[in-house]
Amino acid sequence: MLIVMKNDASPEQISAVEEEVKKLGFTPYAIPGSQRTAIGVLGNEKQVDSITIEGMPGVINVIHVSRPYKLVGREFRQTCTTVEIGGVKIGGGALAVMAGPCAVESREQIVSTAEFIASAGAAMLRGGAFKPRTSPYAFQGLCAEGVKLLAEARAASGLPFVTEVIDEKSLEVCAEEADMLQIGARNMQNFSLLKMVGQSGKPVLLKRGMSATVKDLLMSAEYIMSEGNEKIVLCERGIRTFSDASRNTLDLCAIPYIKAESHLPVIVDPSHAMGVRDKIAPVALAAVASGADGLMIEVHPNPRAALSDGPQSLDFDSFAQTMKQVAAVAAAVGKTMA
Amino acid sequence: MLIVMKNDASPEQISAVEEEVKKLGFTPYAIPGSQRTAIGVLGNEKQVDSITIEGMPGVINVIHVSRPYKLVGREFRQTCTTVEIGGVKIGGGALAVMAGPCAVESREQIVSTAEFIASAGAAMLRGGAFKPRTSPYAFQGLCAEGVKLLAEARAASGLPFVTEVIDEKSLEVCAEEADMLQIGARNMQNFSLLKMVGQSGKPVLLKRGMSATVKDLLMSAEYIMSEGNEKIVLCERGIRTFSDASRNTLDLCAIPYIKAESHLPVIVDPSHAMGVRDKIAPVALAAVASGADGLMIEVHPNPRAALSDGPQSLDFDSFAQTMKQVAAVAAAVGKTMA
Amino acid sequence: MLIVMKNDASPEQISAVEEEVKKLGFTPYAIPGSQRTAIGVLGNEKQVDSITIEGMPGVINVIHVSRPYKLVGREFRQTCTTVEIGGVKIGGGALAVMAGPCAVESREQIVSTAEFIASAGAAMLRGGAFKPRTSPYAFQGLCAEGVKLLAEARAASGLPFVTEVIDEKSLEVCAEEADMLQIGARNMQNFSLLKMVGQSGKPVLLKRGMSATVKDLLMSAEYIMSEGNEKIVLCERGIRTFSDASRNTLDLCAIPYIKAESHLPVIVDPSHAMGVRDKIAPVALAAVASGADGLMIEVHPNPRAALSDGPQSLDFDSFAQTMKQVAAVAAAVGKTMA
Amino acid sequence: MLIVMKNDASPEQISAVEEEVKKLGFTPYAIPGSQRTAIGVLGNEKQVDSITIEGMPGVINVIHVSRPYKLVGREFRQTCTTVEIGGVKIGGGALAVMAGPCAVESREQIVSTAEFIASAGAAMLRGGAFKPRTSPYAFQGLCAEGVKLLAEARAASGLPFVTEVIDEKSLEVCAEEADMLQIGARNMQNFSLLKMVGQSGKPVLLKRGMSATVKDLLMSAEYIMSEGNEKIVLCERGIRTFSDASRNTLDLCAIPYIKAESHLPVIVDPSHAMGVRDKIAPVALAAVASGADGLMIEVHPNPRAALSDGPQSLDFDSFAQTMKQVAAVAAAVGKTMA
Repeated sequence: MLIVMKNDASPEQISAVEEEVKKLGFTPYAIPGSQRTAIGVLGNEKQVDSITIEGMPGVINVIHVSRPYKLVGREFRQTCTTVEIGGVKIGGGALAVMAGPCAVESREQIVSTAEFIASAGAAMLRGGAFKPRTSPYAFQGLCAEGVKLLAEARAASGLPFVTEVIDEKSLEVCAEEADMLQIGARNMQNFSLLKMVGQSGKPVLLKRGMSATVKDLLMSAEYIMSEGNEKIVLCERGIRTFSDASRNTLDLCAIPYIKAESHLPVIVDPSHAMGVRDKIAPVALAAVASGADGLMIEVHPNPRAALSDGPQSLDFDSFAQTMKQVAAVAAAVGKTMA
Repeated sequence: MLIVMKNDASPEQISAVEEEVKKLGFTPYAIPGSQRTAIGVLGNEKQVDSITIEGMPGVINVIHVSRPYKLVGREFRQTCTTVEIGGVKIGGGALAVMAGPCAVESREQIVSTAEFIASAGAAMLRGGAFKPRTSPYAFQGLCAEGVKLLAEARAASGLPFVTEVIDEKSLEVCAEEADMLQIGARNMQNFSLLKMVGQSGKPVLLKRGMSATVKDLLMSAEYIMSEGNEKIVLCERGIRTFSDASRNTLDLCAIPYIKAESHLPVIVDPSHAMGVRDKIAPVALAAVASGADGLMIEVHPNPRAALSDGPQSLDFDSFAQTMKQVAAVAAAVGKTMA
Repeated sequence: MLIVMKNDASPEQISAVEEEVKKLGFTPYAIPGSQRTAIGVLGNEKQVDSITIEGMPGVINVIHVSRPYKLVGREFRQTCTTVEIGGVKIGGGALAVMAGPCAVESREQIVSTAEFIASAGAAMLRGGAFKPRTSPYAFQGLCAEGVKLLAEARAASGLPFVTEVIDEKSLEVCAEEADMLQIGARNMQNFSLLKMVGQSGKPVLLKRGMSATVKDLLMSAEYIMSEGNEKIVLCERGIRTFSDASRNTLDLCAIPYIKAESHLPVIVDPSHAMGVRDKIAPVALAAVASGADGLMIEVHPNPRAALSDGPQSLDFDSFAQTMKQVAAVAAAVGKTMA
Repeated sequence: MLIVMKNDASPEQISAVEEEVKKLGFTPYAIPGSQRTAIGVLGNEKQVDSITIEGMPGVINVIHVSRPYKLVGREFRQTCTTVEIGGVKIGGGALAVMAGPCAVESREQIVSTAEFIASAGAAMLRGGAFKPRTSPYAFQGLCAEGVKLLAEARAASGLPFVTEVIDEKSLEVCAEEADMLQIGARNMQNFSLLKMVGQSGKPVLLKRGMSATVKDLLMSAEYIMSEGNEKIVLCERGIRTFSDASRNTLDLCAIPYIKAESHLPVIVDPSHAMGVRDKIAPVALAAVASGADGLMIEVHPNPRAALSDGPQSLDFDSFAQTMKQVAAVAAAVGKTMA
């Protein structure tokens, strides 16, 4: 940690800061410059809680040199983590595609989708049973019944499935049946829920919040991992910006950045980012080329009749075609299909 | 609702859209323009779910003319709603200041703060017992013990208190004692929690999420109100932008906009927006001048020793001084102090 | 155009709006709904200037159905435009890579770079002679001397070159020698300059501003094209957001969106978006996969000694390696190298 | 400057960085920590150009401790600067209101406006003669004729005027007649233009760009001041964010931040931020309460007939009423009207 003093900070102010650092159990290390003094803090194994220092007279800035996250960081573990979900490995050089409808609507819908996407090369099934919707008047999902249907679709297709949990009750239902638990973007900083999925020991798909920095995302992953659960896959799904090009702005610069900062695998959801069906394939391909370990794509047998997110769902034909392009780009960047 | 067709949409595509509108139970109303056709949808008492239409061939845009929120909207109720919390009225022409520490730390700390802010003119006490922290290693609050201490501080000072709930368990504890339940910015779209505080019947302080539009905020309020709970106070606390001027960018343009769209009262939290102590007063005054119904300000007997948010907490002297300025600006815009 | 009235708009207010529409020379077309009235405007060949209507009593919203841009729009021209620059075609199915240093520094530097990138497969040379720098104390470029050196590098390598113009004087110098004129992000809405490059008749590379929507970008292109110059290549180079993953957030969702809205070719600059050398290749590949018609990459013989943008410049080896990957991804999406 | 090394940086890498610092003429100062080494750079009177260091092996981060701006900074000059424009002082404890139409349209329009606003307490007249418009088809201003009319309005009302310059030609015309030159938000980083207004010696109103940080704004002011012109007034006018509450998001947190960082006066333009007439007064009052030195408000005799920005212009009555409220809030924060 580095404490930067104002250029007119008095010797007394500098001394006071040095005393405070000692009180915290660390060694201050004054660095007199020609314009101002800075004070280095040595001996800190973990991040110093700087709040007692930030507001002190004469202090202009406190700079944390260490990262706030530990377990999820690349400095903690050099090698890339691979997460296994019902036989599917994410993170080990293969590209894993999860696909399926936004919401489970019926046995017919979810089973036919699972069978089709399996035939087209998908590695996992996705489908929402407990739906967080911005409007209280919108379809909220089939709940427990939806989870049962997902299990039936798994049996029919052989694909493991991921489904979203939104609270303690849905977690209880899903933890029994699901292969992987999804934390949605709106719950990325629902720390109670993060602790609970951490304790569940189940593989977790953690989506980046719409206004979360990569640092925020990694801190949320740290919550899960600090409960002893290392089976975490991160997911970039678009951030909120002023841009009118898409529903959310897909932040693909985040992929190489996450790869440098963390050992956890990361996938991309182009459907929620783009928001309109006919422009999803190009961004899906871009995600693969950027180094993502997988994709999550919304597919529906009849998007026009979907109960949620219809406009951004691919139909079977478009999905099959997109998968061919995905495989070609994956090969071009040295990846096989999971 | 208005459906805009591409300028080269075929008559067949236009007919198909008209048929779909009829299937949904509404009356289509074609408006041929010189460049393109648009199709109005009549007879809809509530918002049409447009997902079956958005992806149809020839459709370039679907425009919702009605607001997605109903109960919280100004068109539903013309008069401003006043929320009463333990004798304090928010929303009726008076300015209510809630103040207190980010986190309850000890009896001494919270009681002395409550007594001081009461003497300085605050109307309510705030204090966190269950703390949502971005780091799993940071202080997480005194939990149930903290709520008890808040009740003691209320007894000592006569001020009703608001405290944050983060899940079912904390809600159970707080619902019994607290005068008002706070939903934090990170939980603004935790719809499970919104339903629970709606059912509790307790007054709710709903903070705007960092990436929430005003429409999103009002939809979250709609969740609470659709459970039969009208005692909602909204809170602007800064949004996430690129600006380097403050921790979050306080969106004061939102105050007159919310006033025009909704009948609910709205307060402003300058402490979380600004993030540094010595610049909080100017933005607090700005919030009052913008028409807010109240303020929420962090105050701590010894900010340098605070266990969380110390750098943005005012000490007693600064708070007393700020309150004098707040009263002067409130008077200038025709408000009295609650 | 559609004018939406408040749900309590009076018949007199509705009539007044209809009269105003007639005064503007158009035909009003009232659409009574169950909640409110909307008024369609027919007969407008071009966009109606709605300012006289927007503030009228009873009006809640004015919605423009037509796009504000005409010449650059896909509805004006269905087929994709190809721009030819000194023999290189951009936009016709081939992928064109422009490369070179941020700033021209010396004959040795620019000639050796041009020769190397040509050997590695680049189609064009880039280099700044007139540099817009955020600090008045930073290196401002070699100016006219730099343009001469670019011409020498062109002679040595056979590559046409693009260089930035920042005002009338630099335009005069560059228009004589350069194959293509670049408008930088900070000048995207310098409308005087846009008109001047439009009148020059030279191919123009128009970079998207950091806070420009795609609509803004296309309106700036409309400025150039309305002066009779159709040789426009758009360039996505990152927008300003809160994200900490990169210097700017590359908006690759904009590529398919631009392709749908406009017939103009579009390239991507991953160097300015990412800002750090070792993460540029992944985003460059992502840009190719997203459907871009080309790339602009900063290359320097010795990035550590570069006078500007050193940290984001590739050295020769990294560039050669990146070009191999670029060619592989281009082939995977059906493109050849220009 | 502080150079942070990776936690596994080798002694050789650390030595190489120290050598590079010496080569640049400074003294390296290694600070060994328990996790990693940092290297302080001493003896730099001005900001070190760190580009040769940022990409070196083992370097994870370079932190600039000094501000990049000098002349405009509070550390350069402790006392607040007052700018005098035709007898009006901005920055010295009084609140100066500039008002007038977006564009000068006719003698009648501008003279009547000037006379009215003078009677209502405005200190300066504003009006655009050279208009930067996003569409090439929109009204571009009366140009030189408009400047003449502004001079007539000045003669009639006694108010000095400010008008926007957009290029060399408009600057020549305006520099002769105008009391103050405005640099619009879109030209904030048109460095050629900044140098020219710096050389003109005229008072300059510098508007913050839509995606400019405060640091960017101050660097643009540094361009003007480094040409020897200290008569600079900054202007906050809203930044681009995702918020749907207003056309741009007014960043009032920036006012106390600018006051802390710079000695230059700063005013606020609520009209361009809010974008709609009936919500401008509350944000104008908020700006005054936040500590701004003035306001810039759009006023038009007949907003519905305005050739540009009609929807956000106040009519005479609303302006007069707003001025009364402004004076009340100004008094509440200890300011008089200029």
